[in-house]
Amino acid sequence: MFSSADHAYMSQALQLAEKGLYGTSPNPRVGCVIVRDGRVVGSGWHERAGQPHAEINALNAAGTAARGATAYVTLEPCSHHGRTPPCAEALIKAGIAKVVTAMTDPNPLVAGGGCELLKQAGMEVQTGLMEAEARALNIGFVARHTRKRPWVRVKIAASLDGKTALSNGSSQWITGEAARRDGHRFRARSCAVLTGIGTILADDPQLTVRHVETSRQPLRVIVDSRLEIPVDARVLHGDGELVFTATASEEKIEALRDVGARSIVMPDKNDNIDLVGMMRTLADFEINEVMVEAGSKLNGALIHAGLVDELVIYLAPYLIGDVARGMLKLPELTDLAGKHALMIHDLRMVGPDIRVIARIP
Amino acid sequence: MFSSADHAYMSQALQLAEKGLYGTSPNPRVGCVIVRDGRVVGSGWHERAGQPHAEINALNAAGTAARGATAYVTLEPCSHHGRTPPCAEALIKAGIAKVVTAMTDPNPLVAGGGCELLKQAGMEVQTGLMEAEARALNIGFVARHTRKRPWVRVKIAASLDGKTALSNGSSQWITGEAARRDGHRFRARSCAVLTGIGTILADDPQLTVRHVETSRQPLRVIVDSRLEIPVDARVLHGDGELVFTATASEEKIEALRDVGARSIVMPDKNDNIDLVGMMRTLADFEINEVMVEAGSKLNGALIHAGLVDELVIYLAPYLIGDVARGMLKLPELTDLAGKHALMIHDLRMVGPDIRVIARIP
Repeated sequence: MFSSADHAYMSQALQLAEKGLYGTSPNPRVGCVIVRDGRVVGSGWHERAGQPHAEINALNAAGTAARGATAYVTLEPCSHHGRTPPCAEALIKAGIAKVVTAMTDPNPLVAGGGCELLKQAGMEVQTGLMEAEARALNIGFVARHTRKRPWVRVKIAASLDGKTALSNGSSQWITGEAARRDGHRFRARSCAVLTGIGTILADDPQLTVRHVETSRQPLRVIVDSRLEIPVDARVLHGDGELVFTATASEEKIEALRDVGARSIVMPDKNDNIDLVGMMRTLADFEINEVMVEAGSKLNGALIHAGLVDELVIYLAPYLIGDVARGMLKLPELTDLAGKHALMIHDLRMVGPDIRVIARIP
Repeated sequence: MFSSADHAYMSQALQLAEKGLYGTSPNPRVGCVIVRDGRVVGSGWHERAGQPHAEINALNAAGTAARGATAYVTLEPCSHHGRTPPCAEALIKAGIAKVVTAMTDPNPLVAGGGCELLKQAGMEVQTGLMEAEARALNIGFVARHTRKRPWVRVKIAASLDGKTALSNGSSQWITGEAARRDGHRFRARSCAVLTGIGTILADDPQLTVRHVETSRQPLRVIVDSRLEIPVDARVLHGDGELVFTATASEEKIEALRDVGARSIVMPDKNDNIDLVGMMRTLADFEINEVMVEAGSKLNGALIHAGLVDELVIYLAPYLIGDVARGMLKLPELTDLAGKHALMIHDLRMVGPDIRVIARIP
């Protein structure tokens, strides 16, 4: 159904889409390549929310050469008026003859609408070319729309024997510089970075993207059931950071508001934070990918609640021994059948450290 | 100094040598390729101790074609009368014109002697072609001769979060079938498999090579400071298995002798087993590679004593949680500077499991 030339052009469109990896949030990363008579006459990608979509950039580059051409787009062209006019209309107006997309829009409210509009205008439309790659690129956007929950990625840095810190808490620089930079790449592509109050009180981290270039910073989200966060915590030095809590101390909530932070009171029946509700809320906030950088307690609680999709584990070439702190607080198992099964998605060296990307099916 | 043809022939000789991986113990794995006028006229490898060396097999295959030929040997030809006559003499007698070896004999008592004999006979001798590969193939043989200690390889099977068993001890089948078979390949190449009394009492393992074909079984060695091993332990169903102990109960030693096991009493000052002395003794027993398959206590004690060269860690795609048992009992650290540094030597998937080979420099 698809030729090798089709694959080559879509592959090029996917590479362009990836240029928006750190910038398009909450929009998806999209690339577009316009081809006429076996020649690329225009291409483009979506850079930032509010700026033109990939198709518009590609059409502008192609100019009148777009007439009668084929457009390869990594995501179904939009049919609705959002911050910009619908791309489907622009493709029709420019005289595009055929559109090949990698996947339909995952938003159930619009899915298929863009392609339908194109077909009604007499255009040939093909869908599903390199769909797996396209979905992977927008894994959080797809998750948010199809299941009303972000893609939740937990980062853990440990020694090869699974220790994240000494028993006295010392944990600085377990992994190397390359792994830290790699971790910042995951932060940069995330809409939000989430941590727990334990990490805030112990390390007072900024949780900003620093080791890679980015045009935007992810939202910081703090899980703090008793609202213990100091108002001068470095993580709050942002713009409307979110603090989830289980107790509503009006005074503290106001103090946080004064430093620009937003508190969301969301207790469960046991007066802990309702983690499922929290993730649903983050999806409502248009959060596609969440990067969790927390301690063993919150990591374990999220895994136990079935809210984690992916683990990015850096294993440093060290042995520390069993007395030190482990990766995950989970309820004690009495039968190995109760273990949490993973799928190893990617395995490689990052500098001197091992990086494992594992998914929870 | 060496041509690409030289590399190709030595590479072939190394591949032949590797055919002896499971069989030559305590001898080294050696391969030999004899080349005349750009053509391989004979090749061979050492199969088992007591049987002909690689050079003899290759000379026999070459016959009179060996006259004037070049012999590529992965290890310096022997110059001493062992269980078989010296290969250097045979090479001279056959009229070989030139010998290229990958490495000299690591035994300081004979090192260089073989090459010297060849040179005295007027032969051209070159040494050091693909030496790293040749040393790797005989890593234990080299270790035993150069530092009077075997190459000690510790195998650990754990979940991705570093847990080897549940807190109730349940540990069966953490890793998959492919990893188990891979583990048996490491057993098969070892001269000895070493375990602790804790593992014997908990699992009563056989510690034999079963999942791969082999012509010999490694010696089983048990670390049992108070000589608690039951005389009907399955690990003792072999031929002269070794039990190291710190207490000399004549009665138990005799009972063990009755079932064919040998006891070695080797206490340190604290009435534990002198692990350093034990490893020296294993070298005296001509043990090249030791495979340690023990629990976190013995693994930790060996690492702490600086006696471990290599870790083969299988990480299964599971999360178990911090309450479960860890990999290594090591003295508590108060400063990360005290961590044991490793070098990641190899990283790959083995079936659904991750395999890490790490070395302690």
